[in-house]
Amino acid sequence: MKAAIIGTSGHIDLALGVRDRLPQLKFVGIAPGSPDEDAREFYIEQMEPSLIPYYNDYRAMLDTEKPDLAVVAPFFFLQSRIACECLARGIAVFLEKPMAVSFEQLERLQRTHAQGKAALCPMLPYRYHPEFYAAWRAVKDGLIGEPLLITAQKSYKLGSRHPMYTHRATYGGTIPWVAIHAIDWVHWFTDGRVLEVSASHATAGNRGHGEMESSGLCFYRLANSGAASVSCDYFRPGAAPTHGEDRLRVAGEKGVVEVGAGEARLCTHAEARSLPKEEPRAIFVEFVRHILEGAPMRITAEEAFAVSELALKSREAADTKTAVRVRG
Amino acid sequence: MKAAIIGTSGHIDLALGVRDRLPQLKFVGIAPGSPDEDAREFYIEQMEPSLIPYYNDYRAMLDTEKPDLAVVAPFFFLQSRIACECLARGIAVFLEKPMAVSFEQLERLQRTHAQGKAALCPMLPYRYHPEFYAAWRAVKDGLIGEPLLITAQKSYKLGSRHPMYTHRATYGGTIPWVAIHAIDWVHWFTDGRVLEVSASHATAGNRGHGEMESSGLCFYRLANSGAASVSCDYFRPGAAPTHGEDRLRVAGEKGVVEVGAGEARLCTHAEARSLPKEEPRAIFVEFVRHILEGAPMRITAEEAFAVSELALKSREAADTKTAVRVRG
Repeated sequence: MKAAIIGTSGHIDLALGVRDRLPQLKFVGIAPGSPDEDAREFYIEQMEPSLIPYYNDYRAMLDTEKPDLAVVAPFFFLQSRIACECLARGIAVFLEKPMAVSFEQLERLQRTHAQGKAALCPMLPYRYHPEFYAAWRAVKDGLIGEPLLITAQKSYKLGSRHPMYTHRATYGGTIPWVAIHAIDWVHWFTDGRVLEVSASHATAGNRGHGEMESSGLCFYRLANSGAASVSCDYFRPGAAPTHGEDRLRVAGEKGVVEVGAGEARLCTHAEARSLPKEEPRAIFVEFVRHILEGAPMRITAEEAFAVSELALKSREAADTKTAVRVRG
Repeated sequence: MKAAIIGTSGHIDLALGVRDRLPQLKFVGIAPGSPDEDAREFYIEQMEPSLIPYYNDYRAMLDTEKPDLAVVAPFFFLQSRIACECLARGIAVFLEKPMAVSFEQLERLQRTHAQGKAALCPMLPYRYHPEFYAAWRAVKDGLIGEPLLITAQKSYKLGSRHPMYTHRATYGGTIPWVAIHAIDWVHWFTDGRVLEVSASHATAGNRGHGEMESSGLCFYRLANSGAASVSCDYFRPGAAPTHGEDRLRVAGEKGVVEVGAGEARLCTHAEARSLPKEEPRAIFVEFVRHILEGAPMRITAEEAFAVSELALKSREAADTKTAVRVRG
């Protein structure tokens, strides 16, 4: 099975980092998603010893190498377009989130995927993070009762980011880029039963990053009468021990599940304990297994579309300062 | 200085618990706020050895004892009415939150207080909690920059609650009763610069407590382009170590302040550290000093009105599922 890399602006390490565990997979080429992307620098620093050929033009690479799978992480506004090209050629796509930065892009991606030529998986790996899966499992097993109150946080260090981030047109926004992981948690834990979103985002304090929002907050009404909130920010301070900090709390009548610092904890009326974690699984490895063996994914393409749509609706709610209906 | 107690349904321990520190204050009587309140049981269990007289009728007590100060904590829907009676008599009032359970009640209380006959202080003690004050001080000192993203949590154990809680008409709602403390934090940390609120609350999982909401979530747009969220719930599980769990996170360009488990922590680009805490101060002691010596309060009556109004608007937003304008 042959894989190619298109673009190096996203988390392609989700694929490259597990190469050793995929002897059935051979990387056959790398190319930028657009001429202005610094893919060659990444190639020289990290990939040249692998003897993978570098292409200036990903279409030439696809024509020549005929990969079965593409790892697609260009400038964010090009994600959906390049994914569509790959899918139309019958090439499976491991696609950086948010997969699309507009509803039109997302619809086109859905239509192209619906032709059924190739599989699609988003770089939304949290369902394979052992602590998040343990928390989800506890909720699905009914240990907290109906999940009625969900609060989640995504916080990153800002650092100095590529100019691509500083324009809405190329970046897409911080809610679709950062909050989307926590939006995936909300979607996942509620089986997608979200009715409406209100949201806010702001560029204040973004330290010269133009249109890039430095913080955001999303408020969701759930079909079960409960509610969820998702905060995202680039305010994680330099002195913090890790680059990012994820937090999730899911509360119900029977108990509370919390995820933080790589652990999941359950507290009920009877007990408080850490939840046992499965062995770590890599979403890219699962996707390759899915392609080769038909193994089911924890996040399907359909769910990825729904999560991406929810992220875009959340951004719309923030842009318009109006509640946006999520379901019919 | 003479003090009387009217009603025992709220946190009168905020006053009774610091009696030893107030030699200038003498409790002269205790009475229920209404005939159906179990104040006599409380009296027999906790107050009888104090030799304070018990009255069946608080008006008779006020006529006879002529207190300078009343600690008012009746069934919640009676708070504002009794406070108005006391203020009109020139009696200072230490009043259980939310002080009023309707906008009409709140307006009447404001009008009565505006006559200037006596002082009013709400049982909103967090500005005197050393860890919250340390966090607020850090923000006011500019250590995190402009506070752009605030997330807060109030979580209580449910237990079995008095029938008064099970009716909106007598209880007022969980947002005004529980979330109001965190709403006070938002108001305090932002200098009241809140523009709009959206909110949700639900009775699901309230274990037979009728109309009492078991959870709620409020979303605030701030004037500085930032946002805040407040969650409240009665879902704290039986196995949790404490009755309640308060959390606050305030993030800005320069750093993050967090409060939890009785501590305040600051993380900036230069350092991560616990914030030093002042000696604990009791809001009731401060209020007595305010009455006797004119010492300033950290929460004025005007701020208490604003916080109560914000809580009622948050409840309205949850009831109507519509965003409610807060200012102008």
